[in-house]
Amino acid sequence: MEFDHVGIATREAGDLAKLFDDLLAAPIAHEERFDGMRVVFLELSDGTYFELLEPHEGGPIADYLDREGPGLHHVALATPDVAAAIDRARDLGVDPVDEAPRQGAWGHEVAFLHPRSTGGILVEFVERELDS
Amino acid sequence: MEFDHVGIATREAGDLAKLFDDLLAAPIAHEERFDGMRVVFLELSDGTYFELLEPHEGGPIADYLDREGPGLHHVALATPDVAAAIDRARDLGVDPVDEAPRQGAWGHEVAFLHPRSTGGILVEFVERELDS
Repeated sequence: MEFDHVGIATREAGDLAKLFDDLLAAPIAHEERFDGMRVVFLELSDGTYFELLEPHEGGPIADYLDREGPGLHHVALATPDVAAAIDRARDLGVDPVDEAPRQGAWGHEVAFLHPRSTGGILVEFVERELDS
Repeated sequence: MEFDHVGIATREAGDLAKLFDDLLAAPIAHEERFDGMRVVFLELSDGTYFELLEPHEGGPIADYLDREGPGLHHVALATPDVAAAIDRARDLGVDPVDEAPRQGAWGHEVAFLHPRSTGGILVEFVERELDS
């Protein structure tokens, strides 16, 4: 697996995108409305991303922000086979949030693992061919 | 800048290292005692890392775990010049935690930025040559 992105919960995706571009040279690569969120991907020079998640008409990130405040939300790993990654997680006693791959942001097949079985970390698998 | 690692606060670095190797194919690449922590770097196939931070004889991570619980702690970007990155952050109105580069884990020169000015995210700069 390869690192794909970190997800960040924010109430101000536009301001944070501008700061991260100025500070880290990570310009906007993609933006969409998805699943009750405004989702903004910022791309670093190595082809990895920050995924900014801003609530849009409620949705799960609004609840998260009320509870936890803004900050790091999840970490996403790229794999060529999300279904196989879910099976492997289940075999290891890790609880998937998604029992099967589903369509995520930017048209990728994705699945999340529950943080209760991964050291408090919300892990996402994103399906794509690996670079390395 | 390039993605270098995400830092993870944990009370069980050994158990989490084993799980992440089984789940994500991220074996241990380096381990040390540093600044009141047991620090374990797990390497993904693309040369990026998870940095597990376990308290050792108190230290700042023990306080963090008491306050926030285990989970994502910081995100680290690689840059060939940490001092220049700090200057740039200051020019943008971002508060550095470290006013000058200091020695971090694994012998790297590092500096942190305060999360109050980066959307709630603890950002670390790590000095190394870039791959891309």
